[in-house]
Amino acid sequence: MRQAGRYLPEYRKTREQAGGFLDLCKNKELACEVTLQPLRRFDLDAAILFSDILTIPDAMGLGLYFGEGEGPKFEHPVRSESDIDKLFVPDPADKLRYVTDAITLTRSELDGKAPLIGFSGSPWTLATYIVEGGSSKDYHHVKGMMYENPGALHRLLDILARSVVAYLNAQIEAGVQAVMIFDTWGGVLSPQTYRSFSLDYMRQIVSGLKRQHEGQTIPVTLFTKGGAQWIEAIADSGCDAVGLDWTIDIDEAKRRIGDKVALQGNLDPCLLYASPETIRAAVRDVITRYGADPGHVFNLGHGIHQTVDPERLAILVDAVHACGREIRN
Amino acid sequence: MRQAGRYLPEYRKTREQAGGFLDLCKNKELACEVTLQPLRRFDLDAAILFSDILTIPDAMGLGLYFGEGEGPKFEHPVRSESDIDKLFVPDPADKLRYVTDAITLTRSELDGKAPLIGFSGSPWTLATYIVEGGSSKDYHHVKGMMYENPGALHRLLDILARSVVAYLNAQIEAGVQAVMIFDTWGGVLSPQTYRSFSLDYMRQIVSGLKRQHEGQTIPVTLFTKGGAQWIEAIADSGCDAVGLDWTIDIDEAKRRIGDKVALQGNLDPCLLYASPETIRAAVRDVITRYGADPGHVFNLGHGIHQTVDPERLAILVDAVHACGREIRN
Repeated sequence: MRQAGRYLPEYRKTREQAGGFLDLCKNKELACEVTLQPLRRFDLDAAILFSDILTIPDAMGLGLYFGEGEGPKFEHPVRSESDIDKLFVPDPADKLRYVTDAITLTRSELDGKAPLIGFSGSPWTLATYIVEGGSSKDYHHVKGMMYENPGALHRLLDILARSVVAYLNAQIEAGVQAVMIFDTWGGVLSPQTYRSFSLDYMRQIVSGLKRQHEGQTIPVTLFTKGGAQWIEAIADSGCDAVGLDWTIDIDEAKRRIGDKVALQGNLDPCLLYASPETIRAAVRDVITRYGADPGHVFNLGHGIHQTVDPERLAILVDAVHACGREIRN
Repeated sequence: MRQAGRYLPEYRKTREQAGGFLDLCKNKELACEVTLQPLRRFDLDAAILFSDILTIPDAMGLGLYFGEGEGPKFEHPVRSESDIDKLFVPDPADKLRYVTDAITLTRSELDGKAPLIGFSGSPWTLATYIVEGGSSKDYHHVKGMMYENPGALHRLLDILARSVVAYLNAQIEAGVQAVMIFDTWGGVLSPQTYRSFSLDYMRQIVSGLKRQHEGQTIPVTLFTKGGAQWIEAIADSGCDAVGLDWTIDIDEAKRRIGDKVALQGNLDPCLLYASPETIRAAVRDVITRYGADPGHVFNLGHGIHQTVDPERLAILVDAVHACGREIRN
């Protein structure tokens, strides 16, 4: 998850060359370049498309921008029924063409050395940014809409779900070999509202995706940050894998879910601030908890923080391979 | 939880009169006034002391301040062993006297009409602010210390735990009739680190508190936001009640914990943006889920947002009483 990023000096250089963050996302050569950078440094098993999770609302014309040192913001937040009336499912061949072009180029550059993973934000997570107009601490605009006018929010989420289906299918056609749906903010919901305002729309996406492309199966991973309580329901969505953050032990997740889906995770990214010995012990702990059964995709429980020393990530990646080999033998 | 606050026009007026937020906390008459304001408006069953959770680190001389429109910040973040060496357990009779004075005054003003609840932040939660130097998105300084130099963080947490014991016992002696420990950021930890870096120190506090004062039992409530996965362990800490946020259904919490402790919670505070009918239905849902057994303290799952219309809170409080009477009959 977010392999490329500001913790890598070569990324910072390319980003500077691009201008701003969005310029980097929209330049296929540079997006391809930063997608490949982590693979040059680390012995990784897959490449993750470099992009932003807010490409869809940007393509809807909501005016995505990034202030200096700030998170994402929207010039035109969606707050009313009439704001929702104006929304449409963006045609990926038009306003999102830069993403599929970057995928085609990256697949060609990768030349079969590693599979390429595509992704999208979940409808609920996209809705939080669109309705709040950016990041939020309490999500009171989007939750206000959810409680005061649930029909309006369902309409918005349906448009977003259809947009994600079109977007991810375009990514698959362009060449991504697996897709992930990031529900970064599902964990701020209650059990009932999580199911009806987040999970149901991810299920709608899963059932709309082209799971077969050019004779290959395209696995789908769902990740809800803070969703450890609901992993059984997530595993029941029709997905192939469930992403875990670090608030649950992976052996407990496996016990609760069984072998119905693969599990991806789940080291706290802050462990990359620890000593090499601690990193190695923590990797071993996660891998040993899962055990030798197939179906574990080792990953961090969330993105890499920008102040991490890349050398620590190299230690982690090597420890994953060493420990993985050991447990399989 | 946080009954007083910016959603009340009378609070905003008193705060303006005080100067800044910290001036308000440190002025016993005005702190007493804002503690009582919600009770004049709403038919509440208890008063909650108005204060800040960062009074202890402020008393340690770490230079707490609030920038305009910003969260709390510290001039002197605690990042190293030598920073920790300088820390001490503040004498509540000295630097925290304004809190106990406000309690004495508030008890006298309340004149037995409602019990007064005191509180403190948990050691882990205080440590996040102290080490990060304010609020955080990823907690990478404090988690960096946790993984890189756990001994140092344990030393910091022990000082904080002893400080909280002294502080809450001083609150009890000054007259609070119940205490709450807010572990606002325990939910960002993993199962193991939650136990050893947060829960263990709350347990240390619980066992150090004067649970009897002037012939009365002083109940202790522990609340970990995002801690729904760990409520069994929290209930085992020796506390009298467990606070719940809205990410778990209260009937599920009751089923998992049994009747060992009381449960406090757990409506999503964003429901206060909904219509009166939706608020009443949501209150009924929580109360019905818990059922007629004793041991439910109705509460929001977190503080009231500043843009809430106070009229909506009146509707909620009245619905709690009406529904509570109904279920007991």
